[in-house]
Amino acid sequence: MALTEKLERIASLVEQRLDALLAPEPVPMGQARLIEAMRYAALGGGKRLRPFLVIESARLFGVAEEEALEASAALECVHCYSLVHDDLPSMDDDAMRRGRATAHIAFGEATAILAGDALLTLAFDILSRPSTHPDGSVRATLVGLLAQAAGVHGMVGGQALDLAAEGQSLGPMEVAKMQEMKTGALFAFACHAGAVLGRADAVAQGALAAYASAFGQAFQLADDLLDAQGDAATMGKAAAKDEGRGKATLVALLGIDAARARLKALVDDAEAALAPFGAKAVTLKEAARFIVSRRA
Amino acid sequence: MALTEKLERIASLVEQRLDALLAPEPVPMGQARLIEAMRYAALGGGKRLRPFLVIESARLFGVAEEEALEASAALECVHCYSLVHDDLPSMDDDAMRRGRATAHIAFGEATAILAGDALLTLAFDILSRPSTHPDGSVRATLVGLLAQAAGVHGMVGGQALDLAAEGQSLGPMEVAKMQEMKTGALFAFACHAGAVLGRADAVAQGALAAYASAFGQAFQLADDLLDAQGDAATMGKAAAKDEGRGKATLVALLGIDAARARLKALVDDAEAALAPFGAKAVTLKEAARFIVSRRA
Repeated sequence: MALTEKLERIASLVEQRLDALLAPEPVPMGQARLIEAMRYAALGGGKRLRPFLVIESARLFGVAEEEALEASAALECVHCYSLVHDDLPSMDDDAMRRGRATAHIAFGEATAILAGDALLTLAFDILSRPSTHPDGSVRATLVGLLAQAAGVHGMVGGQALDLAAEGQSLGPMEVAKMQEMKTGALFAFACHAGAVLGRADAVAQGALAAYASAFGQAFQLADDLLDAQGDAATMGKAAAKDEGRGKATLVALLGIDAARARLKALVDDAEAALAPFGAKAVTLKEAARFIVSRRA
Repeated sequence: MALTEKLERIASLVEQRLDALLAPEPVPMGQARLIEAMRYAALGGGKRLRPFLVIESARLFGVAEEEALEASAALECVHCYSLVHDDLPSMDDDAMRRGRATAHIAFGEATAILAGDALLTLAFDILSRPSTHPDGSVRATLVGLLAQAAGVHGMVGGQALDLAAEGQSLGPMEVAKMQEMKTGALFAFACHAGAVLGRADAVAQGALAAYASAFGQAFQLADDLLDAQGDAATMGKAAAKDEGRGKATLVALLGIDAARARLKALVDDAEAALAPFGAKAVTLKEAARFIVSRRA
Protein backbone atom coordinates (compact mmCIF):
# COMPACT_ATOMS: atom_id res chain seq x y z
CA MET A 1 0.00 0.00 0.00
CA ALA A 2 1.35 3.44 -0.90
CA LEU A 3 1.99 5.84 1.96
CA THR A 4 -0.73 8.23 0.83
CA GLU A 5 -3.23 5.37 1.06
CA LYS A 6 -1.96 4.45 4.54
CA LEU A 7 -2.25 8.07 5.62
CA GLU A 8 -5.77 8.33 4.24
CA ARG A 9 -6.85 5.12 5.93
CA ILE A 10 -5.58 6.25 9.34
CA ALA A 11 -6.97 9.76 8.80
CA SER A 12 -10.35 8.20 8.14
CA LEU A 13 -10.16 6.12 11.34
CA VAL A 14 -9.22 9.20 13.37
CA GLU A 15 -11.97 11.25 11.74
CA GLN A 16 -14.55 8.60 12.65
CA ARG A 17 -13.29 8.42 16.22
CA LEU A 18 -13.34 12.20 16.67
CA ASP A 19 -16.79 12.30 15.10
CA ALA A 20 -18.03 9.82 17.73
CA LEU A 21 -16.23 11.59 20.59
CA LEU A 22 -17.87 14.86 19.53
CA ALA A 23 -21.31 13.48 18.75
CA PRO A 24 -24.04 16.15 18.78
CA GLU A 25 -26.21 15.79 21.86
CA PRO A 26 -29.63 16.97 23.00
CA VAL A 27 -28.35 19.96 24.94
CA PRO A 28 -29.46 23.62 25.17
CA MET A 29 -28.67 25.72 22.12
CA GLY A 30 -25.70 27.64 23.52
CA GLN A 31 -23.99 24.37 24.40
CA ALA A 32 -24.97 22.73 21.11
CA ARG A 33 -23.33 25.61 19.29
CA LEU A 34 -20.16 25.04 21.30
CA ILE A 35 -20.15 21.36 20.29
CA GLU A 36 -20.75 22.44 16.68
CA ALA A 37 -17.70 24.71 16.86
CA MET A 38 -15.61 21.88 18.36
CA ARG A 39 -16.70 19.62 15.50
CA TYR A 40 -15.91 22.34 12.97
CA ALA A 41 -12.41 22.69 14.42
CA ALA A 42 -11.69 18.97 14.79
CA LEU A 43 -13.42 17.34 11.83
CA GLY A 44 -13.35 17.60 8.07
CA GLY A 45 -9.75 18.02 7.21
CA GLY A 46 -6.14 17.69 8.09
CA LYS A 47 -3.70 14.97 7.25
CA ARG A 48 -3.83 13.62 10.84
CA LEU A 49 -0.05 13.27 10.75
CA ARG A 50 0.28 13.32 14.54
CA PRO A 51 -2.25 10.53 15.10
CA PHE A 52 -0.53 8.61 12.28
CA LEU A 53 2.77 8.84 14.15
CA VAL A 54 1.16 7.62 17.40
CA ILE A 55 -0.34 4.62 15.65
CA GLU A 56 2.71 3.73 13.56
CA SER A 57 5.08 4.17 16.52
CA ALA A 58 2.91 1.92 18.67
CA ARG A 59 2.72 -0.63 15.85
CA LEU A 60 6.51 -1.10 16.09
CA PHE A 61 5.86 -2.78 19.44
CA GLY A 62 2.95 -4.90 18.31
CA VAL A 63 0.19 -2.56 19.50
CA ALA A 64 -2.93 -2.86 17.34
CA GLU A 65 -4.06 0.40 15.79
CA GLU A 66 -7.39 0.42 17.60
CA GLU A 67 -5.43 0.27 20.88
CA ALA A 68 -3.55 3.44 19.91
CA LEU A 69 -6.55 5.23 18.45
CA GLU A 70 -7.72 6.90 21.66
CA ALA A 71 -4.34 8.44 22.44
CA SER A 72 -4.02 9.55 18.83
CA ALA A 73 -7.46 11.21 18.93
CA ALA A 74 -6.54 12.97 22.17
CA LEU A 75 -3.40 14.37 20.55
CA GLU A 76 -5.36 15.56 17.53
CA CYS A 77 -7.77 17.41 19.86
CA VAL A 78 -4.79 19.34 21.25
CA HIS A 79 -3.51 20.10 17.75
CA CYS A 80 -6.92 21.32 16.60
CA TYR A 81 -7.42 23.49 19.70
CA SER A 82 -4.03 25.09 19.08
CA LEU A 83 -5.01 26.00 15.52
CA VAL A 84 -8.24 27.64 16.71
CA HIS A 85 -6.47 29.75 19.33
CA ASP A 86 -3.49 30.57 17.08
CA ASP A 87 -5.85 31.85 14.39
CA LEU A 88 -7.59 34.32 16.76
CA PRO A 89 -7.50 38.05 15.95
CA SER A 90 -5.18 38.79 18.89
CA MET A 91 -2.79 36.03 17.76
CA ASP A 92 -2.09 35.33 14.07
CA ASP A 93 -5.40 36.86 12.93
CA ASP A 94 -6.05 34.31 10.19
CA ALA A 95 -9.38 34.17 8.38
CA MET A 96 -8.73 30.98 6.37
CA ARG A 97 -7.58 27.53 7.40
CA ARG A 98 -7.70 24.32 5.35
CA GLY A 99 -9.51 26.22 2.62
CA ARG A 100 -12.38 27.50 4.75
CA ALA A 101 -13.18 30.14 7.33
CA THR A 102 -11.33 29.84 10.63
CA ALA A 103 -13.41 29.01 13.70
CA HIS A 104 -13.70 32.57 15.03
CA ILE A 105 -14.87 33.78 11.61
CA ALA A 106 -17.45 31.01 11.44
CA PHE A 107 -18.64 31.05 15.09
CA GLY A 108 -17.45 34.31 16.63
CA GLU A 109 -14.49 34.88 18.85
CA ALA A 110 -16.00 33.87 22.21
CA THR A 111 -17.26 30.53 20.93
CA ALA A 112 -13.93 29.86 19.20
CA ILE A 113 -11.99 30.47 22.41
CA LEU A 114 -14.35 28.20 24.36
CA ALA A 115 -14.25 25.50 21.66
CA GLY A 116 -10.45 25.51 21.89
CA ASP A 117 -10.62 25.30 25.69
CA ALA A 118 -13.10 22.43 25.47
CA LEU A 119 -11.00 20.49 22.92
CA LEU A 120 -7.90 20.81 25.11
CA THR A 121 -9.92 19.60 28.10
CA LEU A 122 -11.42 16.74 26.08
CA ALA A 123 -7.92 15.52 25.19
CA PHE A 124 -7.17 14.84 28.85
CA ASP A 125 -10.62 13.37 29.37
CA ILE A 126 -9.92 10.86 26.59
CA LEU A 127 -6.47 9.96 27.94
CA SER A 128 -7.94 9.32 31.40
CA ARG A 129 -10.36 6.66 30.17
CA PRO A 130 -9.66 2.92 30.43
CA SER A 131 -10.29 2.69 26.67
CA THR A 132 -6.97 4.51 26.17
CA HIS A 133 -5.08 1.86 28.14
CA PRO A 134 -6.20 -0.65 30.79
CA ASP A 135 -3.37 0.36 33.16
CA GLY A 136 -4.10 3.59 35.05
CA SER A 137 -0.43 4.39 35.51
CA VAL A 138 0.09 4.26 31.73
CA ARG A 139 -2.85 6.67 31.33
CA ALA A 140 -1.40 9.01 33.96
CA THR A 141 1.97 8.88 32.17
CA LEU A 142 0.34 9.84 28.87
CA VAL A 143 -1.51 12.71 30.56
CA GLY A 144 1.74 14.05 31.99
CA LEU A 145 3.60 13.74 28.70
CA LEU A 146 0.86 15.46 26.72
CA ALA A 147 0.50 18.23 29.30
CA GLN A 148 4.25 18.88 29.16
CA ALA A 149 4.30 18.81 25.37
CA ALA A 150 1.35 21.21 25.15
CA GLY A 151 2.11 23.53 28.06
CA VAL A 152 4.30 26.47 28.99
CA HIS A 153 7.52 24.58 28.22
CA GLY A 154 6.11 23.10 25.02
CA MET A 155 3.56 24.23 22.46
CA VAL A 156 1.99 27.17 24.30
CA GLY A 157 5.42 28.44 25.32
CA GLY A 158 6.50 28.19 21.69
CA GLN A 159 3.49 30.20 20.56
CA ALA A 160 4.39 32.87 23.13
CA LEU A 161 7.94 32.96 21.74
CA ASP A 162 6.60 33.15 18.21
CA LEU A 163 4.36 36.11 19.03
CA ALA A 164 7.15 37.86 20.92
CA ALA A 165 9.46 37.35 17.92
CA GLU A 166 7.31 39.25 15.42
CA GLY A 167 9.32 42.18 14.19
CA GLN A 168 12.39 41.03 16.16
CA SER A 169 15.48 39.55 14.54
CA LEU A 170 16.03 36.07 15.97
CA GLY A 171 19.08 33.95 15.19
CA PRO A 172 18.79 30.42 13.74
CA MET A 173 19.23 28.82 17.20
CA GLU A 174 16.43 30.90 18.67
CA VAL A 175 14.11 30.14 15.77
CA ALA A 176 14.92 26.43 16.06
CA LYS A 177 14.16 26.48 19.80
CA MET A 178 10.87 28.27 19.24
CA GLN A 179 9.81 25.79 16.55
CA GLU A 180 10.93 22.80 18.62
CA MET A 181 8.50 23.97 21.30
CA LYS A 182 5.69 25.22 19.09
CA THR A 183 5.43 22.33 16.64
CA GLY A 184 8.15 19.83 17.60
CA ALA A 185 6.76 19.02 21.04
CA LEU A 186 3.52 17.47 19.74
CA PHE A 187 5.39 15.35 17.16
CA ALA A 188 7.71 14.22 19.96
CA PHE A 189 4.69 13.33 22.08
CA ALA A 190 3.18 11.34 19.19
CA CYS A 191 6.14 8.99 18.95
CA HIS A 192 6.66 8.93 22.73
CA ALA A 193 3.02 7.97 23.25
CA GLY A 194 3.41 5.09 20.80
CA ALA A 195 6.45 3.92 22.75
CA VAL A 196 4.62 4.19 26.08
CA LEU A 197 1.62 2.26 24.77
CA GLY A 198 4.06 -0.37 23.50
CA ARG A 199 6.04 -0.40 26.75
CA ALA A 200 9.20 0.24 24.71
CA ASP A 201 12.64 -0.05 26.34
CA ALA A 202 14.98 2.93 26.69
CA VAL A 203 16.88 2.21 23.46
CA ALA A 204 13.71 2.08 21.40
CA GLN A 205 12.36 5.21 23.13
CA GLY A 206 15.59 7.04 22.34
CA ALA A 207 15.49 6.00 18.69
CA LEU A 208 11.91 7.19 18.34
CA ALA A 209 12.73 10.46 20.11
CA ALA A 210 15.54 11.10 17.60
CA TYR A 211 13.19 10.28 14.73
CA ALA A 212 10.48 12.58 16.09
CA SER A 213 12.93 15.44 16.56
CA ALA A 214 14.19 15.25 12.96
CA PHE A 215 10.65 14.69 11.68
CA GLY A 216 9.32 17.73 13.52
CA GLN A 217 12.09 20.01 12.27
CA ALA A 218 11.68 18.73 8.71
CA PHE A 219 7.93 19.25 8.86
CA GLN A 220 8.32 22.86 10.00
CA LEU A 221 10.98 23.60 7.41
CA ALA A 222 8.84 22.15 4.63
CA ASP A 223 5.93 24.25 5.88
CA ASP A 224 8.04 27.40 5.83
CA LEU A 225 9.32 26.55 2.33
CA LEU A 226 5.77 26.10 1.13
CA ASP A 227 4.82 29.44 2.67
CA ALA A 228 7.78 31.20 1.06
CA GLN A 229 7.17 29.70 -2.38
CA GLY A 230 3.57 28.65 -2.36
CA ASP A 231 0.35 30.22 -3.35
CA ALA A 232 -2.87 30.36 -1.43
CA ALA A 233 -4.60 27.73 -3.57
CA THR A 234 -2.22 24.85 -2.76
CA MET A 235 -1.79 25.95 0.86
CA GLY A 236 -5.47 26.22 1.71
CA LYS A 237 -4.55 29.39 3.55
CA ALA A 238 -2.91 32.71 2.77
CA ALA A 239 0.68 32.27 1.50
CA ALA A 240 3.82 34.30 2.22
CA LYS A 241 2.15 35.52 5.39
CA ASP A 242 5.20 34.73 7.49
CA GLU A 243 7.39 37.23 5.67
CA GLY A 244 4.65 39.83 5.52
CA ARG A 245 4.19 39.89 9.29
CA GLY A 246 7.88 39.58 10.13
CA LYS A 247 7.59 35.99 11.39
CA ALA A 248 10.84 34.30 12.26
CA THR A 249 11.50 31.31 9.96
CA LEU A 250 14.64 29.37 9.11
CA VAL A 251 13.89 29.85 5.41
CA ALA A 252 14.21 33.61 5.82
CA LEU A 253 17.45 33.18 7.76
CA LEU A 254 19.11 30.50 5.63
CA GLY A 255 17.73 31.23 2.17
CA ILE A 256 15.70 28.78 0.13
CA ASP A 257 18.57 26.65 -1.21
CA ALA A 258 20.20 26.11 2.17
CA ALA A 259 16.79 25.41 3.71
CA ARG A 260 16.13 22.74 1.06
CA ALA A 261 19.49 21.13 1.77
CA ARG A 262 18.77 21.16 5.49
CA LEU A 263 15.35 19.61 4.89
CA LYS A 264 16.97 16.75 2.99
CA ALA A 265 19.52 16.22 5.78
CA LEU A 266 16.78 16.13 8.42
CA VAL A 267 14.82 13.50 6.50
CA ASP A 268 18.02 11.43 6.24
CA ASP A 269 18.48 11.84 10.02
CA ALA A 270 14.90 10.73 10.63
CA GLU A 271 15.39 7.60 8.54
CA ALA A 272 18.73 6.82 10.16
CA ALA A 273 17.25 7.08 13.65
CA LEU A 274 14.91 4.19 12.85
CA ALA A 275 17.77 1.75 12.10
CA PRO A 276 17.23 -0.26 15.34
CA PHE A 277 13.74 -1.24 14.14
CA GLY A 278 14.85 -2.65 10.78
CA ALA A 279 12.18 -3.39 8.21
CA LYS A 280 9.35 -2.86 10.72
CA ALA A 281 9.88 0.89 10.46
CA VAL A 282 9.30 1.17 6.72
CA THR A 283 6.08 3.19 7.08
CA LEU A 284 7.66 5.70 9.46
CA LYS A 285 10.55 6.09 7.01
CA GLU A 286 8.12 6.70 4.17
CA ALA A 287 6.34 9.28 6.32
CA ALA A 288 9.60 11.21 6.74
CA ARG A 289 10.24 11.11 2.97
CA PHE A 290 6.66 12.22 2.38
CA ILE A 291 7.34 15.54 4.11
CA VAL A 292 9.70 16.62 1.33
CA SER A 293 7.24 15.81 -1.40
CA ARG A 294 4.15 17.32 0.15
CA ARG A 295 2.57 20.27 -1.57
CA ALA A 296 0.07 21.45 1.02
CA MET B 1 -9.71 28.12 65.31
CA ALA B 2 -12.26 30.34 63.57
CA LEU B 3 -13.22 29.45 60.03
CA THR B 4 -11.66 32.60 58.60
CA GLU B 5 -8.34 31.59 60.14
CA LYS B 6 -8.67 28.08 58.73
CA LEU B 7 -9.45 29.52 55.30
CA GLU B 8 -6.49 31.87 55.47
CA ARG B 9 -4.13 29.12 56.54
CA ILE B 10 -5.15 26.83 53.65
CA ALA B 11 -5.13 29.76 51.21
CA SER B 12 -1.57 30.48 52.27
CA LEU B 13 -0.54 26.84 51.72
CA VAL B 14 -2.15 26.83 48.27
CA GLU B 15 -0.55 30.17 47.40
CA GLN B 16 2.89 28.82 48.34
CA ARG B 17 2.34 25.67 46.32
CA LEU B 18 1.18 27.57 43.23
CA ASP B 19 4.11 29.95 43.65
CA ALA B 20 6.50 26.98 43.55
CA LEU B 21 4.69 25.32 40.65
CA LEU B 22 4.94 28.57 38.68
CA ALA B 23 8.49 29.50 39.68
CA PRO B 24 10.11 31.97 37.27
CA GLU B 25 12.73 30.22 35.15
CA PRO B 26 15.68 31.24 33.00
CA VAL B 27 13.78 31.13 29.70
CA PRO B 28 13.62 33.49 26.69
CA MET B 29 11.71 36.70 27.29
CA GLY B 30 8.53 35.79 25.42
CA GLN B 31 8.17 32.66 27.51
CA ALA B 32 9.13 34.45 30.74
CA ARG B 33 6.33 36.92 30.08
CA LEU B 34 3.90 34.03 29.66
CA ILE B 35 4.99 32.61 33.03
CA GLU B 36 4.62 36.09 34.53
CA ALA B 37 1.05 36.26 33.22
CA MET B 38 0.29 32.79 34.63
CA ARG B 39 1.63 33.93 38.01
CA TYR B 40 -0.43 37.12 37.80
CA ALA B 41 -3.55 35.08 37.15
CA ALA B 42 -2.93 32.37 39.74
CA LEU B 43 -1.22 34.18 42.63
CA GLY B 44 -1.96 37.07 44.94
CA GLY B 45 -5.58 36.74 45.76
CA GLY B 46 -8.68 34.67 45.99
CA LYS B 47 -10.19 32.87 48.92
CA ARG B 48 -9.04 29.49 47.51
CA LEU B 49 -12.44 28.06 48.43
CA ARG B 50 -12.18 25.20 45.94
CA PRO B 51 -8.79 24.00 47.23
CA PHE B 52 -10.18 24.36 50.75
CA LEU B 53 -13.04 22.00 49.87
CA VAL B 54 -10.62 19.44 48.38
CA ILE B 55 -8.48 19.47 51.51
CA GLU B 56 -11.35 19.45 54.00
CA SER B 57 -13.22 16.72 52.11
CA ALA B 58 -10.10 14.56 52.00
CA ARG B 59 -9.53 15.20 55.71
CA LEU B 60 -12.85 13.48 56.49
CA PHE B 61 -11.15 10.24 55.42
CA GLY B 62 -7.90 10.81 57.27
CA VAL B 63 -5.95 12.24 54.32
CA ALA B 64 -3.28 14.71 55.50
CA GLU B 65 -3.59 18.15 53.95
CA GLU B 66 -0.21 17.96 52.21
CA GLU B 67 -1.46 14.80 50.47
CA ALA B 68 -4.43 16.72 49.08
CA LEU B 69 -2.48 19.88 48.25
CA GLU B 70 -1.45 18.89 44.72
CA ALA B 71 -5.00 18.08 43.60
CA SER B 72 -6.24 21.28 45.21
CA ALA B 73 -3.59 23.34 43.39
CA ALA B 74 -4.53 21.69 40.09
CA LEU B 75 -8.17 22.64 40.63
CA GLU B 76 -7.21 26.22 41.45
CA CYS B 77 -5.25 26.42 38.17
CA VAL B 78 -8.44 25.53 36.30
CA HIS B 79 -10.44 28.10 38.25
CA CYS B 80 -7.86 30.82 37.57
CA TYR B 81 -7.64 29.98 33.86
CA SER B 82 -11.42 30.24 33.61
CA LEU B 83 -11.39 33.73 35.15
CA VAL B 84 -8.76 34.90 32.64
CA HIS B 85 -10.71 33.61 29.64
CA ASP B 86 -14.10 34.75 30.99
CA ASP B 87 -12.75 38.29 31.45
CA LEU B 88 -11.60 38.58 27.80
CA PRO B 89 -13.08 41.34 25.60
CA SER B 90 -15.03 38.83 23.48
CA MET B 91 -16.50 37.22 26.63
CA ASP B 92 -17.47 39.29 29.69
CA ASP B 93 -15.08 42.14 28.80
CA ASP B 94 -14.06 42.87 32.38
CA ALA B 95 -11.20 45.24 33.15
CA MET B 96 -11.04 44.62 36.90
CA ARG B 97 -10.79 41.46 38.97
CA ARG B 98 -9.90 41.11 42.66
CA GLY B 99 -9.27 44.84 42.79
CA ARG B 100 -6.72 45.00 40.00
CA ALA B 101 -6.47 44.94 36.22
CA THR B 102 -7.57 41.71 34.55
CA ALA B 103 -4.87 39.66 32.80
CA HIS B 104 -5.61 40.87 29.27
CA ILE B 105 -5.46 44.49 30.45
CA ALA B 106 -2.16 43.87 32.19
CA PHE B 107 -0.52 41.60 29.57
CA GLY B 108 -2.46 41.99 26.34
CA GLU B 109 -5.07 39.67 24.94
CA ALA B 110 -2.79 37.14 23.22
CA THR B 111 -0.69 36.54 26.33
CA ALA B 112 -3.82 36.30 28.48
CA ILE B 113 -5.34 33.64 26.22
CA LEU B 114 -2.08 31.66 26.23
CA ALA B 115 -1.69 32.04 30.01
CA GLY B 116 -5.16 30.58 30.45
CA ASP B 117 -4.35 27.73 28.07
CA ALA B 118 -1.12 27.04 29.94
CA LEU B 119 -2.81 27.07 33.37
CA LEU B 120 -5.44 24.60 32.17
CA THR B 121 -2.70 22.37 30.78
CA LEU B 122 -0.67 22.68 33.98
CA ALA B 123 -3.63 21.44 36.01
CA PHE B 124 -3.52 18.09 34.22
CA ASP B 125 0.26 18.01 34.40
CA ILE B 126 0.01 18.35 38.20
CA LEU B 127 -2.67 15.67 38.51
CA SER B 128 -0.55 13.23 36.47
CA ARG B 129 2.41 13.40 38.86
CA PRO B 130 3.08 10.77 41.54
CA SER B 131 3.15 13.62 44.09
CA THR B 132 -0.63 13.93 43.61
CA HIS B 133 -1.17 10.28 44.56
CA PRO B 134 1.11 7.24 44.48
CA ASP B 135 -1.47 5.14 42.61
CA GLY B 136 -1.57 5.89 38.87
CA SER B 137 -5.17 4.79 38.55
CA VAL B 138 -6.22 7.31 41.22
CA ARG B 139 -4.37 10.01 39.27
CA ALA B 140 -6.09 8.97 36.04
CA THR B 141 -9.46 9.06 37.83
CA LEU B 142 -8.80 12.60 39.05
CA VAL B 143 -7.77 13.68 35.53
CA GLY B 144 -11.02 12.31 34.11
CA LEU B 145 -13.17 13.92 36.81
CA LEU B 146 -11.50 17.31 36.41
CA ALA B 147 -11.72 17.17 32.62
CA GLN B 148 -15.42 16.38 32.82
CA ALA B 149 -16.06 19.12 35.38
CA ALA B 150 -14.16 21.69 33.29
CA GLY B 151 -15.20 20.66 29.78
CA VAL B 152 -18.08 20.96 27.36
CA HIS B 153 -20.53 19.32 29.77
CA GLY B 154 -19.23 21.29 32.73
CA MET B 155 -17.65 24.69 33.20
CA VAL B 156 -16.90 25.59 29.57
CA GLY B 157 -20.35 24.43 28.50
CA GLY B 158 -21.84 26.59 31.26
CA GLN B 159 -19.91 29.62 30.05
CA ALA B 160 -21.24 29.00 26.54
CA LEU B 161 -24.79 28.87 27.94
CA ASP B 162 -24.16 32.04 29.92
CA LEU B 163 -22.95 33.93 26.85
CA ALA B 164 -25.84 32.63 24.76
CA ALA B 165 -28.28 33.75 27.47
CA GLU B 166 -27.32 37.44 27.39
CA GLY B 167 -30.37 39.41 26.39
CA GLN B 168 -32.51 36.24 26.39
CA SER B 169 -35.11 35.48 29.05
CA LEU B 170 -34.26 32.21 30.74
CA GLY B 171 -36.48 30.50 33.29
CA PRO B 172 -35.25 29.57 36.78
CA MET B 173 -34.56 25.96 35.74
CA GLU B 174 -32.43 27.05 32.81
CA VAL B 175 -30.49 29.51 34.92
CA ALA B 176 -29.94 26.84 37.58
CA LYS B 177 -28.66 24.38 34.97
CA MET B 178 -26.30 26.96 33.50
CA GLN B 179 -24.92 27.82 36.93
CA GLU B 180 -24.61 24.18 37.94
CA MET B 181 -22.33 23.71 34.93
CA LYS B 182 -20.50 27.01 35.03
CA THR B 183 -19.67 27.20 38.73
CA GLY B 184 -21.17 24.12 40.37
CA ALA B 185 -19.09 21.57 38.48
CA LEU B 186 -15.77 22.72 39.95
CA PHE B 187 -17.20 22.73 43.51
CA ALA B 188 -18.51 19.22 42.86
CA PHE B 189 -15.07 18.16 41.63
CA ALA B 190 -13.46 19.63 44.77
CA CYS B 191 -15.46 17.41 47.12
CA HIS B 192 -15.32 14.44 44.76
CA ALA B 193 -11.53 14.72 44.55
CA GLY B 194 -11.30 14.69 48.35
CA ALA B 195 -13.43 11.56 48.39
CA VAL B 196 -11.29 9.87 45.70
CA LEU B 197 -8.06 10.73 47.53
CA GLY B 198 -9.65 9.28 50.68
CA ARG B 199 -10.97 6.20 48.87
CA ALA B 200 -14.42 7.00 50.23
CA ASP B 201 -17.25 4.50 49.91
CA ALA B 202 -20.38 5.19 47.85
CA VAL B 203 -22.41 6.49 50.79
CA ALA B 204 -19.75 9.00 51.76
CA GLN B 205 -19.28 10.04 48.12
CA GLY B 206 -23.01 10.59 47.77
CA ALA B 207 -23.16 12.68 50.95
CA LEU B 208 -20.28 14.86 49.76
CA ALA B 209 -21.88 15.21 46.32
CA ALA B 210 -25.10 16.46 47.94
CA TYR B 211 -23.10 18.90 50.07
CA ALA B 212 -21.14 20.17 47.05
CA SER B 213 -24.30 20.67 45.02
CA ALA B 214 -25.98 22.76 47.73
CA PHE B 215 -22.71 24.59 48.44
CA GLY B 216 -22.20 25.49 44.78
CA GLN B 217 -25.74 26.80 44.36
CA ALA B 218 -25.49 28.78 47.59
CA PHE B 219 -22.18 30.26 46.51
CA GLN B 220 -23.57 31.42 43.17
CA LEU B 221 -26.71 32.85 44.76
CA ALA B 222 -24.65 34.75 47.34
CA ASP B 223 -22.47 36.07 44.52
CA ASP B 224 -25.49 37.24 42.56
CA LEU B 225 -26.97 38.86 45.69
CA LEU B 226 -23.69 40.70 46.26
CA ASP B 227 -23.71 41.86 42.65
CA ALA B 228 -27.30 43.07 42.89
CA GLN B 229 -26.77 44.91 46.18
CA GLY B 230 -23.07 45.50 46.41
CA ASP B 231 -20.78 48.25 45.41
CA ALA B 232 -17.52 48.04 43.52
CA ALA B 233 -15.35 48.67 46.59
CA THR B 234 -16.45 45.57 48.53
CA MET B 235 -16.66 43.41 45.40
CA GLY B 236 -13.20 44.21 44.06
CA LYS B 237 -14.86 44.41 40.66
CA ALA B 238 -17.61 46.38 39.03
CA ALA B 239 -20.98 45.83 40.75
CA ALA B 240 -24.47 45.42 39.28
CA LYS B 241 -22.85 44.37 36.01
CA ASP B 242 -25.09 41.33 35.66
CA GLU B 243 -28.23 43.41 35.37
CA GLY B 244 -26.55 45.96 33.13
CA ARG B 245 -25.60 43.39 30.53
CA GLY B 246 -28.78 41.35 30.79
CA LYS B 247 -27.11 38.39 32.52
CA ALA B 248 -29.39 35.67 33.69
CA THR B 249 -29.38 35.35 37.49
CA LEU B 250 -31.77 33.76 39.97
CA VAL B 251 -31.83 37.02 41.95
CA ALA B 252 -33.31 38.82 38.96
CA LEU B 253 -35.88 36.04 38.50
CA LEU B 254 -36.86 35.47 42.14
CA GLY B 255 -36.35 38.89 43.67
CA ILE B 256 -33.96 39.65 46.52
CA ASP B 257 -36.12 38.41 49.42
CA ALA B 258 -36.93 35.06 47.83
CA ALA B 259 -33.29 34.67 46.79
CA ARG B 260 -32.18 35.25 50.40
CA ALA B 261 -34.64 32.64 51.65
CA ARG B 262 -33.40 30.18 49.05
CA LEU B 263 -29.80 30.86 50.04
CA LYS B 264 -30.63 30.01 53.66
CA ALA B 265 -32.38 26.80 52.62
CA LEU B 266 -29.40 25.75 50.49
CA VAL B 267 -27.01 26.26 53.38
CA ASP B 268 -29.30 24.15 55.57
CA ASP B 269 -29.26 21.47 52.85
CA ALA B 270 -25.48 21.58 52.69
CA GLU B 271 -25.21 21.11 56.45
CA ALA B 272 -27.77 18.33 56.49
CA ALA B 273 -25.94 16.41 53.76
CA LEU B 274 -22.94 16.11 56.06
CA ALA B 275 -24.86 14.27 58.79
CA PRO B 276 -23.17 10.90 58.05
CA PHE B 277 -19.80 12.37 59.01
CA GLY B 278 -20.88 13.64 62.43
CA ALA B 279 -18.53 15.99 64.26
CA LYS B 280 -15.71 15.42 61.77
CA ALA B 281 -17.52 17.63 59.27
CA VAL B 282 -17.67 20.74 61.45
CA THR B 283 -15.32 22.74 59.23
CA LEU B 284 -17.24 21.94 56.04
CA LYS B 285 -20.45 22.99 57.84
CA GLU B 286 -18.85 26.25 58.88
CA ALA B 287 -17.74 26.79 55.27
CA ALA B 288 -21.34 26.53 54.10
CA ARG B 289 -22.49 29.01 56.76
CA PHE B 290 -19.65 31.31 55.77
CA ILE B 291 -21.11 31.77 52.29
CA VAL B 292 -24.11 33.64 53.69
CA SER B 293 -21.97 36.00 55.70
CA ARG B 294 -19.37 36.80 53.10
CA ARG B 295 -19.11 40.33 51.82
CA ALA B 296 -16.76 39.95 48.85
